[in-house]
Amino acid sequence: MSDAAHTEMWEKLNLDISAHEGLLEVLGKFYGDIYLSQENRLNGMEYLDFVLSEVHGLRIKEIQDAKATGKKVIGTFCVFVPEELTLAANAIHVGLCSGADAGTDEAEKLVPRNTCALIKSFIGFKLARICPFTESCDLVVGETTCDGKKKAYEAFGKLVPMHVMEVPQTKTTDAKQLFKAEVLRYKEALEELTGVKITVENLRKSISVVNEKRKALQRLSRLRAADPAPISGRDALLINQVSFYDEPERFTQSINTLCDQIEERIAQGGGVVPAGTKRLLLSGCPMAVPNWKLPYVMESSNAVIVGEESCIGSRNVRDLVDDSADTIEGMLDALVDRYMKIDCACFTPNDERMVNVQNMVKDLNADGVVHYALSFCQPYAHEAIKLQDVLSQKGIPMLSVETGYSMEDVEQLKTRVEAFVEMLD
Amino acid sequence: MSDAAHTEMWEKLNLDISAHEGLLEVLGKFYGDIYLSQENRLNGMEYLDFVLSEVHGLRIKEIQDAKATGKKVIGTFCVFVPEELTLAANAIHVGLCSGADAGTDEAEKLVPRNTCALIKSFIGFKLARICPFTESCDLVVGETTCDGKKKAYEAFGKLVPMHVMEVPQTKTTDAKQLFKAEVLRYKEALEELTGVKITVENLRKSISVVNEKRKALQRLSRLRAADPAPISGRDALLINQVSFYDEPERFTQSINTLCDQIEERIAQGGGVVPAGTKRLLLSGCPMAVPNWKLPYVMESSNAVIVGEESCIGSRNVRDLVDDSADTIEGMLDALVDRYMKIDCACFTPNDERMVNVQNMVKDLNADGVVHYALSFCQPYAHEAIKLQDVLSQKGIPMLSVETGYSMEDVEQLKTRVEAFVEMLD
Ligand code: SF4
Ligand code: SF4
Ligand code: SF4
Ligand code: SF4
Repeated sequence: MSDAAHTEMWEKLNLDISAHEGLLEVLGKFYGDIYLSQENRLNGMEYLDFVLSEVHGLRIKEIQDAKATGKKVIGTFCVFVPEELTLAANAIHVGLCSGADAGTDEAEKLVPRNTCALIKSFIGFKLARICPFTESCDLVVGETTCDGKKKAYEAFGKLVPMHVMEVPQTKTTDAKQLFKAEVLRYKEALEELTGVKITVENLRKSISVVNEKRKALQRLSRLRAADPAPISGRDALLINQVSFYDEPERFTQSINTLCDQIEERIAQGGGVVPAGTKRLLLSGCPMAVPNWKLPYVMESSNAVIVGEESCIGSRNVRDLVDDSADTIEGMLDALVDRYMKIDCACFTPNDERMVNVQNMVKDLNADGVVHYALSFCQPYAHEAIKLQDVLSQKGIPMLSVETGYSMEDVEQLKTRVEAFVEMLD
Repeated sequence: MSDAAHTEMWEKLNLDISAHEGLLEVLGKFYGDIYLSQENRLNGMEYLDFVLSEVHGLRIKEIQDAKATGKKVIGTFCVFVPEELTLAANAIHVGLCSGADAGTDEAEKLVPRNTCALIKSFIGFKLARICPFTESCDLVVGETTCDGKKKAYEAFGKLVPMHVMEVPQTKTTDAKQLFKAEVLRYKEALEELTGVKITVENLRKSISVVNEKRKALQRLSRLRAADPAPISGRDALLINQVSFYDEPERFTQSINTLCDQIEERIAQGGGVVPAGTKRLLLSGCPMAVPNWKLPYVMESSNAVIVGEESCIGSRNVRDLVDDSADTIEGMLDALVDRYMKIDCACFTPNDERMVNVQNMVKDLNADGVVHYALSFCQPYAHEAIKLQDVLSQKGIPMLSVETGYSMEDVEQLKTRVEAFVEMLD
């Protein structure tokens, strides 16, 4: 696509062209420093480099073309919104979680200053008119997970067409029942928006598409158990990030191709770092594009990240939907079962997460855990304390990091992470 | 009660005697400065002065005596826990929300620093062993309202016997259904704890007791519409605070006596301040004993508080339980209906609150609103922004205050409140 064609498309989407140029420039430079500078990258990553370079270009063009044929676009902020339903209604499902500061001053007029960077970012991106995904959405689907998002949607809903799903806070039978009602309500909202009825056939197909995507990502996760680590944590994070806005079947195929390469590399004893490099599990809040600060700091500190215990990572990938049902009712139950397994810190008591983190440490041969909470994120800040307690009883070292999107604390983080890595036997 | 008898009782409750002495001393001095120094107080307030002076003395003795006869004590932190059920099970229902800093350093090991003062306070009071109410509890009932409390209960539950009720985040039919299931679960937990079966008879009685208490407080609220204001906001707040731990029937009677005096005073044209004094509505987070800082600042700024739009205020008092049902099922439905009317900021979108605040401004002839959010309370900080917007459209002035329990910002608050009051035409 030519520059002029890009610009024309962005103008049609009513982006603030010069602010958007500024964003792309920063993003490009950041990507160069953090990604393209890596050594021993796999060939398969070129696909990801391309996708990212065209994230506001070709992918948006595809989406606009689809919209021209009548397809609808659904934006989401949380892995609780069932992509399977969106796809069954022949709509496009994209993640809007934003990973950079933009329009913060304006955002702080709509949400309190003591709000996590992720929330301020999606509000700021909207107010600054620099996100072509947000501007492409026919419906944005929020959820009542944390207080910050739940209340921010009230303000956000004045800026975009919004549907909010209630996610319960416990996993009792009655709470699951409430979530089922909400899944049904989302199904109806989709049918009304798209004019497409969700049937056994199209839902079966979309369950399979999303399961296949998750299987490819699970395969990638498992391969990272190898020492030397065959792929950097940054690249793995990028893959998980791209899974939220790329076309799912194409994405699945390219990840499987990449996994073939990884298997070859492992068979040859190769890796992205030397064998014996300290291995870290990154655990906590989701990291949306281009929130690569902490992974970069970690992998510049004589360590490699071997897993992301996060919604842009294992929390989105671990569980598949049982595909054995053959009625809509049965399929919705299977969706509810799968989604209610998510171990988000918004649940109480959420002890599953404590177990899941330990399992990942074991399965991926990690030497330690870096827990990441966005500043002002209360659910994950609470669980950081709880997890530290649980892991210390098992003799698993953990470093607790709280940070936002600003680059001001990079040096300080680096000092802390280096000290932590050194301390790992 | 003699000092020695007090101390013996506190020792039995395993209080930290010297830390507790320190607390009582501060509380006494604070009460003297803020309450006893007021002019034109009503005689009826002597009862409240007495209750407060004996809050850790006679009231605890009563509770211990009741426990000796087999009664159970239930501690709560939120107006969502139905007192009617507690009383029906012949148990004592007390509010534990704490309004002073204590044991903060220790509390910050269990909950994040970015947690509101109220939460840190109840954890700190427990860890410092200075609250005889907490130590008297046979069960503490939490709820999944805000993220801060919901997650803090996970840590708190390791220190006390705990039952957590799920409060939904919307008011859909399905959400109400979930709350009903939780009300039922609380009923069962109570029956198991007390060995008392909740019947049509004892529940009817307790619904009436609590309705009568709320009616007395409603009566008090209505009388405050008069100009000059017949009672200070501080005294009215104290009454609402005491309603959370005094014996309910005695409390109702004394408030009704006080209201008789207020009616006389109004008939004689008397008041606690001169007619024409600027009238403020205080709106926002609950203020637990001894969190009197902001009311004191407001009433030392040429203004009088005429209403508390808060859970220690109108939010706890506005709605009665329909007492027409004559089956347990029907009574539980009536409870659910009443409790699901509460306009807590934890709900989304909670537009009712916007309407309720405006109604209070009108009914109480307020000149302006001071919105109070505890620092780090996200739900109320969001609604402060929303309320400011709604009120400014109606030409109702509002000052938005965010503060904690520390006294450091008193002067700064005073400057802001004075400027706000001066600006009211
Ligand atoms: S961390 Fe929780 S709220 Fe955030 S995206 Fe994941 S599931 Fe949703
Ligand atoms: S990082 Fe925490 S506060 Fe921010 S949106 Fe996610 S769960 Fe909410
Ligand atoms: S403000 Fe909300 S969470 Fe707090 S006591 Fe009131 S109803 Fe409960
Ligand atoms: S003041 Fe806010 S954060 Fe604190 S307990 Fe109440 S609702 Fe939660």
